[in-house]
Amino acid sequence: MKAKVHITLKSGVLDPQGKAIQHALDGLGFKGVEDVRQGKVIEIKLKGKDKKKAKADVEKMCKTLLANTIVENFTVDIAE
Amino acid sequence: MKAKVHITLKSGVLDPQGKAIQHALDGLGFKGVEDVRQGKVIEIKLKGKDKKKAKADVEKMCKTLLANTIVENFTVDIAE
Repeated sequence: MKAKVHITLKSGVLDPQGKAIQHALDGLGFKGVEDVRQGKVIEIKLKGKDKKKAKADVEKMCKTLLANTIVENFTVDIAE
Repeated sequence: MKAKVHITLKSGVLDPQGKAIQHALDGLGFKGVEDVRQGKVIEIKLKGKDKKKAKADVEKMCKTLLANTIVENFTVDIAE
């Protein structure tokens, strides 16, 4: 089973990496870019076939290790 | 308009960050994790309303700046 975790900065939290990308795009001539935010995506391959358990496990992983819930939001999608 | 870009390492390319996460999860007692791969997600807010042009623009951004196409794959989704 595969889980896909998206981790993004909460709105209002400064994103210097995103700003750097935005400025670089502007410098390369891409006009019309209003905002850029960068996040992470983590793909986890899991044993077992219980989707509900997998989702609960991955949410626990996010809270304990993968995401900093003070400044980041996360979403979990289970596939297969 | 919003574009969401997913950038992931090509299969076969070593992912030490993913391996580090996998070992950390194992150490925390999460068993049954077979593999972990980490990628990036970049959200770009664009001016204009032409979806087709937006997608072409963002694909060009990926090729010139955002992704290293030698070792990374990217996908572009346009929303709104």
